[in-house]
Amino acid sequence: MNVIEKQSGAAFKLKKGQKLKVIDPQGEQVSDMVLFNAEDTREKISSGKTLDFEENILITRGDHLWSNRSNKMMEILEDTNGRNDFLLAPCSPETFKIMYGNSDYHPSCFENLYTNLAKFDIEPDDIPTAFNIFMNVKFQPDGKLSVDPPMSKAGDHVIFEAKMDLIVGLTACSAEDSNGGSFKPIHYEILD
Amino acid sequence: MNVIEKQSGAAFKLKKGQKLKVIDPQGEQVSDMVLFNAEDTREKISSGKTLDFEENILITRGDHLWSNRSNKMMEILEDTNGRNDFLLAPCSPETFKIMYGNSDYHPSCFENLYTNLAKFDIEPDDIPTAFNIFMNVKFQPDGKLSVDPPMSKAGDHVIFEAKMDLIVGLTACSAEDSNGGSFKPIHYEILD
Repeated sequence: MNVIEKQSGAAFKLKKGQKLKVIDPQGEQVSDMVLFNAEDTREKISSGKTLDFEENILITRGDHLWSNRSNKMMEILEDTNGRNDFLLAPCSPETFKIMYGNSDYHPSCFENLYTNLAKFDIEPDDIPTAFNIFMNVKFQPDGKLSVDPPMSKAGDHVIFEAKMDLIVGLTACSAEDSNGGSFKPIHYEILD
Repeated sequence: MNVIEKQSGAAFKLKKGQKLKVIDPQGEQVSDMVLFNAEDTREKISSGKTLDFEENILITRGDHLWSNRSNKMMEILEDTNGRNDFLLAPCSPETFKIMYGNSDYHPSCFENLYTNLAKFDIEPDDIPTAFNIFMNVKFQPDGKLSVDPPMSKAGDHVIFEAKMDLIVGLTACSAEDSNGGSFKPIHYEILD
């Protein structure tokens, strides 16, 4: 079992056929995930392709995460909570500045993704919109969006199966709004 | 007035402060638009950043289109139809193959974007999720998505103001589902 400490991140390889289990150990925490083809990192996870092929905003068990080249990157095998977000970009320093008027340094999923992915030669500009595990973004009929605390309870988890060799970036979210102000760790496990 | 013939595209520069008027001359047609910073094309339009900062799925008059670096790329000054999509990736050959079982050649917004943008050294992998002008994507409370014919009528238009020097890619959509099966041109005008 691997631990991502609160407000931090990790990056690692996942081979085709391996499974990734992402766990919210205490409940009400979010984990942003990005994916790259390990053989050619210009191929990466795409929210626009995934929402198009799955014909749904809410991506959960039975769905695939698709790439910008229209290939399947992962399949979701289990999802005990069932609510994830694929609309919003990872929180970044500008999120806290522009949306919350906070100009001081603030850790962010964006920084925690690109600093951990740097060892795979992935740069900040390469970070796409992440699949935000456990994130509870509500949408109204008029399109209005709001970020509510996650509904995940301690031990809730999602299991993904890799459909190609992948580089995975994963965080324990740094944004107050995403986790009800309580920063917490994320656990993950690689299953063969 | 510039004409984008049915099932084709265009790419051009737009200087900061210039306005782009995109017109649906016959009604019920969609135009996919992507944006790049003219000085550094690694900065590009981001659906995830735009939906986050505007806190809405439905982007229209008064909203900005934001980049992956959290900068404003365009402001929407006018939108006579009022319905656009920013969820779905541009239709690609795989869209027609995977979603419609059509394995023959089919023109697509994705191809029409990257072939026109090639003169600016932009490659297929660089194409992000587009802002889909006039596209009518319905979403249900359970997240289910459906592509309905546009509600735009002949002469409907959107006026964008550039907030930085831009490279713009623009199409007249090639997908039957986006325009009710009736392929049509798109007109555009650059206003100083």
